[in-house]
Amino acid sequence: MMYSLEAGGKRLRPILVLSAAEAVGRAEQARKLAMPVACAVEMIHTYSLIHDDLPAMDDDDFRRGKPTNHKIYGEAMAILAGDGLLTHAFFAVTRAVSLGAPPEAVLAIVSDLARLAGAPGMVGGQAADMQGEQGVTSLEELEYIHLHKTSDLLVFSVLAGARIGGASSEQLEALQRFARKLGLAFQIQDDILDLVGDAAKLGKPVQSDVEERKVTYPYLIGMEESQKLVVRLTQEAKQALAEAKLETPDTLLAIADYLMSRDH
Amino acid sequence: MMYSLEAGGKRLRPILVLSAAEAVGRAEQARKLAMPVACAVEMIHTYSLIHDDLPAMDDDDFRRGKPTNHKIYGEAMAILAGDGLLTHAFFAVTRAVSLGAPPEAVLAIVSDLARLAGAPGMVGGQAADMQGEQGVTSLEELEYIHLHKTSDLLVFSVLAGARIGGASSEQLEALQRFARKLGLAFQIQDDILDLVGDAAKLGKPVQSDVEERKVTYPYLIGMEESQKLVVRLTQEAKQALAEAKLETPDTLLAIADYLMSRDH
Repeated sequence: MMYSLEAGGKRLRPILVLSAAEAVGRAEQARKLAMPVACAVEMIHTYSLIHDDLPAMDDDDFRRGKPTNHKIYGEAMAILAGDGLLTHAFFAVTRAVSLGAPPEAVLAIVSDLARLAGAPGMVGGQAADMQGEQGVTSLEELEYIHLHKTSDLLVFSVLAGARIGGASSEQLEALQRFARKLGLAFQIQDDILDLVGDAAKLGKPVQSDVEERKVTYPYLIGMEESQKLVVRLTQEAKQALAEAKLETPDTLLAIADYLMSRDH
Repeated sequence: MMYSLEAGGKRLRPILVLSAAEAVGRAEQARKLAMPVACAVEMIHTYSLIHDDLPAMDDDDFRRGKPTNHKIYGEAMAILAGDGLLTHAFFAVTRAVSLGAPPEAVLAIVSDLARLAGAPGMVGGQAADMQGEQGVTSLEELEYIHLHKTSDLLVFSVLAGARIGGASSEQLEALQRFARKLGLAFQIQDDILDLVGDAAKLGKPVQSDVEERKVTYPYLIGMEESQKLVVRLTQEAKQALAEAKLETPDTLLAIADYLMSRDH
């Protein structure tokens, strides 16, 4: 569990939790209360990577520049490390209560996490991805996969932080749209980087999607259209962010810009 | 997910949740409020069976008289079905709030579930079991494995039901001792049945532990001592139950007696 948690990565999801909590208001206290939830979402993300890398799934040998979990500890321990991280994430969320977060907000976060990381969310996206590899994937199916496999956990991160920060239901609705667009842009950028990125910066070989015959946005609509789509989705995300009328949206805005222009 | 949930089984854990909730008091209302938690614990149990049966783990072809999940759906889908059930269990727990259960009790249940089903509990027991297969297992190590792999989820079931029923902290403490003894007796009886049971009643081949060279109580201390231990642990469980001073302990008592004498 610690090997994969400590392997690094962008920490995008915990940063989104903390940034959303701060953006709503009472920044310092919100950041403290949101920390267990920020840790929880990184545990969920890390478990999903461990399981995705398994031989029965994507069969990847490297992740974040290091051998994948099962390459070091074997398949059985990798499955259990994933199960342990997934389960512990919910323990971490409940710790926010002992720091002073309102029980109702924490229960809503538990419910959101179970929904957005589960079969109606991330797990469902991964299952659709696995099944998609066995046949033709349409643009609609690809969008379904991306929305659930990637966006849903980003949506969770932003919503959870905002809940801790005391966001109104109108703010939560606008932030959900923000995170959904951001997540789709993020995943298309991932597809693009797999084709034209730098293996050293990415920490994994490029063109692995091509080798694994994965259907991607560049494959379906071309590189130029994909790049245009990333720009458009990022603009729509920023528009939704403006509609959330946050006290200090600057960090979330900066994250949207960074994700669009990142090279790894 | 549904294939394995509907494959049957004793439903011991949900029955413990409901029985504990009723035993504390206000039986009818407690049963209604405890139902989502009863479903949740069966999802956790079922996910653990799906993952335990995988080729990288125990590599079992049959479970509850049917082909195991990965035999039907393949390894990738079996891993994801397990992940989905594990995650959805936490969603189910939060549903108790909308039925009227107190948010504080439900948060305590989420926390208990994450701890007792996670790395400090069931997942840890399974990991120790996997590692134990690679070397000599002492009686102490075997007890650790049984306590966490099996007892912890039974402890959760009894505690969760009791929390919904409104148990005092003294009652929770006594019920925890009850469930721990019961769980150990249950697992030793499992070991015994694997040696002398009826394959048709068990829904799986007998002597599979011997074939897989698993260290069991009968292997370590002999059949006669194992049978005596089941009787002694059951008596200790019933003693702890008496100390919980429940309004209507009858069903929990009957479950303890049934588990000791069961043939499958």
